[in-house]
Amino acid sequence: MPNPTAAILIIGNEVLSGRTADANLNHLARRLGECGINLEECRVVKDVPDAIITAVNALRTQYTYVFTTGGIGPTHDDITIPTIAQAFGVAVERNLQVETKLREYYASRLAPAALRMADYPAGARVVWHGEQFAPGCIMENVIIMAGQPRIMQIMLEAALPMLTQGEPMHTRQIDVWVYESAIAEALESIQNRFPDVDIGSYPYRIEGRPGTALVARGLNPETVEEAFTAIKTLLENVGAETRAA
Amino acid sequence: MPNPTAAILIIGNEVLSGRTADANLNHLARRLGECGINLEECRVVKDVPDAIITAVNALRTQYTYVFTTGGIGPTHDDITIPTIAQAFGVAVERNLQVETKLREYYASRLAPAALRMADYPAGARVVWHGEQFAPGCIMENVIIMAGQPRIMQIMLEAALPMLTQGEPMHTRQIDVWVYESAIAEALESIQNRFPDVDIGSYPYRIEGRPGTALVARGLNPETVEEAFTAIKTLLENVGAETRAA
Repeated sequence: MPNPTAAILIIGNEVLSGRTADANLNHLARRLGECGINLEECRVVKDVPDAIITAVNALRTQYTYVFTTGGIGPTHDDITIPTIAQAFGVAVERNLQVETKLREYYASRLAPAALRMADYPAGARVVWHGEQFAPGCIMENVIIMAGQPRIMQIMLEAALPMLTQGEPMHTRQIDVWVYESAIAEALESIQNRFPDVDIGSYPYRIEGRPGTALVARGLNPETVEEAFTAIKTLLENVGAETRAA
Repeated sequence: MPNPTAAILIIGNEVLSGRTADANLNHLARRLGECGINLEECRVVKDVPDAIITAVNALRTQYTYVFTTGGIGPTHDDITIPTIAQAFGVAVERNLQVETKLREYYASRLAPAALRMADYPAGARVVWHGEQFAPGCIMENVIIMAGQPRIMQIMLEAALPMLTQGEPMHTRQIDVWVYESAIAEALESIQNRFPDVDIGSYPYRIEGRPGTALVARGLNPETVEEAFTAIKTLLENVGAETRAA
């Protein structure tokens, strides 16, 4: 069975204004890779209902899972829950267990707006976790999480066991002091010999010296290893000096 | 005249595999904001022709500008130029001035594959910059740049004077030690009074203590200032302690 696929939808004006540097994409990309869920695409949209609905509906019909981050909370700019409910054509419903939990947590500091964090799209499964704030939820194939990285990570770990996982990707990497143009043609012929392995070439400079990271990545550990051996042989043939990565 | 709008298209398996944490979105978001170009959306796609073509064609018809990063270079996984040419239905053409530059730069180290960096979609404008590697280009409203942050930033600064710029956004921010739920309703009524100002509320925790960043952002400095004053008055009224940001 092929691996499940996924897209990430980052919801937040603050990422597009440059105020906040997103930290969730990289964490999600690594964790999904470890779980054998193939991340195919990511989108970042503003806190605007039309933008969110269009993106959610495009992505949820195209991929096995959609992971959203951001726009969860008690303030007026937290519109992810009602907007995703609208995308699915369902109402928003208050979850009484979560409401009880919020009342216990905030106690006398409870503001009416805090209870908005107990609202979910009708039919969503609440994703319980050990911490004392509102849980995320899964609406059909859409996993709805907070934007704060620490909370997002807790919600993700609680959600992953509820999802179908696949075979993890295998990756081999070598760094060499070489211009990538010097090995481009030979590398392409290796890629052509191993169509199931993604071979990537990532050039950089360190103190003016040109280096390249070469990466072989795929589902089958043997073919990844074969492709990687071919890359290492190529590098020996051109006399490329290995860089300790 | 309203500000021009923009989308960013990040092209790269390495970002979606988690190998590389993208650093270009945040830089671009800040610089476009300073230039009065409203960043509306960002997408990250794999080095796969269909994915790139679909995204480029969706974004270039929807926004004033599309800024792409990644997939520029001499190796087989650098497919941005031929793929964007395909999206526009044009051929790829070698630019002789850039070819001359590359031959001078590489001299005896020149590998045939390096000359691929002199290829551009037919009709694209080359974006010259002072450094000794291949320039980016502008194909109609699509600005094509490298993925390495240092090179991307050089290409961006060379491209910006060739684009229509608008009015920069004005932003005011205050950080307070308060649960955002305690001010959510009052904040929403301020947002309703100032529909042209984006008011954002961004909660966090520092050593367990709940804090919130409140941001007012908009094109008109006076209404941003009025909205910000209303936020400060609200914070005084609830006795919220200011946090030095």
